[in-house]
Amino acid sequence: MLSDNPVTLIINNIGQLLTMDGPVPRVSASMRELGMIRNGALAIADDTIVWTGERSKLKLALAPDCIEVDAEGKVVTPGLIDPHTHPVFSATREDEFEMRLQGKSYMEIAQAGGGIRRSVRDLRSTPEAILYQKAMRRLDRFVEHGVTTIEAKSGYGLSTGSELKQLEVIRDLHRDHVIDLVPTFMGAHEFPDEYRDKREKYVELIINEMLPAVAQSGLAAFSDIFCEKGVFDLDQSYRIQDAARGYGMKLKFHADELVSFGGAELAASMSAVSADHLVYISDAGIKAMAGSRTVAVLLPGTSYSLGHGDFAPARKMIDNGVVVALSTDCNPGSNYSESLPMMISFAATQLRMTAAEAFCAVTVNAACAIDLGGQVGMLIPGLPADLVIWEMDDYRELPYHYGVNLVSAVIKRGQVVLQR
Amino acid sequence: MLSDNPVTLIINNIGQLLTMDGPVPRVSASMRELGMIRNGALAIADDTIVWTGERSKLKLALAPDCIEVDAEGKVVTPGLIDPHTHPVFSATREDEFEMRLQGKSYMEIAQAGGGIRRSVRDLRSTPEAILYQKAMRRLDRFVEHGVTTIEAKSGYGLSTGSELKQLEVIRDLHRDHVIDLVPTFMGAHEFPDEYRDKREKYVELIINEMLPAVAQSGLAAFSDIFCEKGVFDLDQSYRIQDAARGYGMKLKFHADELVSFGGAELAASMSAVSADHLVYISDAGIKAMAGSRTVAVLLPGTSYSLGHGDFAPARKMIDNGVVVALSTDCNPGSNYSESLPMMISFAATQLRMTAAEAFCAVTVNAACAIDLGGQVGMLIPGLPADLVIWEMDDYRELPYHYGVNLVSAVIKRGQVVLQR
Repeated sequence: MLSDNPVTLIINNIGQLLTMDGPVPRVSASMRELGMIRNGALAIADDTIVWTGERSKLKLALAPDCIEVDAEGKVVTPGLIDPHTHPVFSATREDEFEMRLQGKSYMEIAQAGGGIRRSVRDLRSTPEAILYQKAMRRLDRFVEHGVTTIEAKSGYGLSTGSELKQLEVIRDLHRDHVIDLVPTFMGAHEFPDEYRDKREKYVELIINEMLPAVAQSGLAAFSDIFCEKGVFDLDQSYRIQDAARGYGMKLKFHADELVSFGGAELAASMSAVSADHLVYISDAGIKAMAGSRTVAVLLPGTSYSLGHGDFAPARKMIDNGVVVALSTDCNPGSNYSESLPMMISFAATQLRMTAAEAFCAVTVNAACAIDLGGQVGMLIPGLPADLVIWEMDDYRELPYHYGVNLVSAVIKRGQVVLQR
Repeated sequence: MLSDNPVTLIINNIGQLLTMDGPVPRVSASMRELGMIRNGALAIADDTIVWTGERSKLKLALAPDCIEVDAEGKVVTPGLIDPHTHPVFSATREDEFEMRLQGKSYMEIAQAGGGIRRSVRDLRSTPEAILYQKAMRRLDRFVEHGVTTIEAKSGYGLSTGSELKQLEVIRDLHRDHVIDLVPTFMGAHEFPDEYRDKREKYVELIINEMLPAVAQSGLAAFSDIFCEKGVFDLDQSYRIQDAARGYGMKLKFHADELVSFGGAELAASMSAVSADHLVYISDAGIKAMAGSRTVAVLLPGTSYSLGHGDFAPARKMIDNGVVVALSTDCNPGSNYSESLPMMISFAATQLRMTAAEAFCAVTVNAACAIDLGGQVGMLIPGLPADLVIWEMDDYRELPYHYGVNLVSAVIKRGQVVLQR
């Protein structure tokens, strides 16, 4: 017993308890270690796990009002962690999605008002209360699909005031919703309309005005950047991220999403916490990341939703020792989905990851991608009681039985927050 | 007013009411006709639609206890129709799914006990009550995702007694569940173990024993066959289906799923109601189907789940005038999903169908694929009040915002059977 506090909640009769106990982070073959306990049980005192083991060995002092939940032989896993989302926006962009898949060019979509800059106009003109309300509904959907922690980015403001406005909404969501949000500043998501013809001025604005203001506000743990051909080049990316770490912010990169551009190498060289997308990562990029602790966050839903058929080379990364995580990339443009289970299915069918690897990628390794490695994403005594009871007998059902919601219950910090 | 019965249920304040009014079946450009009414309302008397129109024009005699549902400006469509499912089975096959995607061969999977024959052993040894109970849960999931009518096949029995057992379960499900099931006999789904070395004897068994018994039982409206290289050849398929129509059964074919085999041409030549899969349909097959009223039922989830990356040439079929429908193919082997909305998303990203075409393919044209064209799948006075209220402002959100459930309410024969 780690705690002297009496047990307040017991999850009993667990067919497969995936504790995910093992190394942090997890690479190569260790990604398949699930720390599985069959016929298990798990005991919680208040908000903390105090015991896991075989149910026959469960002998603990119970609080008088201790609740016992019968998992009915089903699977229990840690609450899932989504390390890359853009959940604060107002208008959806389904027209643009259809135009793109019907073969319209980037220029035609831009002329129809599409792209990130459309979401920028949208965010700037939408009151905070509306942004908050719409994002709350999205956070509900994350929880409905088993997610208990997400990273959340700004990046639809692209001015000091509207970036802070978006980060304030993220702060309020974190305060009010059961899900935990880890905030990321992403003023370098795109060049706003008013700086299209003076890009260097926008880089200076980020470095000299936005980053100091965001740092002073304390509203962001991370700084992220869209380091890509046609967006922020390697030199601009280095300067912005170097300034960000000067303010004590941790680093993330959108890298090698559209072409092989050297973003992975830059992220690894700057000891970024994560580099994300990586559809077109080079062999040099894989080597650089394998030699670092920078986590590769793969977003197969975005490849799916864009319809181009190219996916990140997950097998090659895993086999070469890169730390791999998975995420939805939930956003109104390139991928609108709050379902991490659907991404686990894509991981199986498109990235050729096993179900065990995929669970590691949305728990232990996803925690590392938001610099919370070993603090969440595992079911071991002393850690927060964030977990999911699934309506399945075998954890391998999740990627296979897709498109439907197999979550049976979600427990966040020891409280049952969802039952279906 | 088609009926003098007073109105019992009004759906009011509908942002986009997709009546799907228009030609039956719908081909080529007509597939995009949605019969859309903006700011609409829909009135129901008992189980039947009696009026649709702009809400400002709603002036009807209401029953004293008439219920009014506020659709809050959202989308309303017909209840979806899934024209190809195998929902009656016991054991799932997630191990086989993972083995296949990890590169195991057909032979290795067979040696591990996989394939249709595994589900045959499973069905034969499972009591009807268990089959019924597990299928009921699956039918719940269909309804949760907006489906109000499905076709359901036997084909895991492959003996006269166990095929009848499976059809009896389908009959009981139709009787007890709110969803409607249209039953199909599929003794020719595979050759059972005991006939592997005497295939012609099994064909004779189907023709001389199974079909007469099924016909006498009245348990099947359709006869289906796996017409494919290595399974039932063209001659066997013709003989079995010719015998089936002699017993008054309507015809369906699993055709051209694995290779181009001539199944589409055979189905069209026999005036089959549908030919399904068609991943490898030939140009001659497309021409034959375009010249017939045989509906092409496309199953993009199966291509997805098998992970081979080849999808049916939907655009070519639509552009050449083939009647196209969509389905889940829900089954424990090649595609385990009860989500027709997810198939609509695949239709957009993989088949390059527009959202309007996809809605036609799961309503008007799906009805044709079960020989109920014009009787379900449209919201017009006189038809059954089967409809869905969706949590979206624009029907094009469905393929775009995928992996989550956007159903808000389901109404079956005038009764609210689901609210989320």
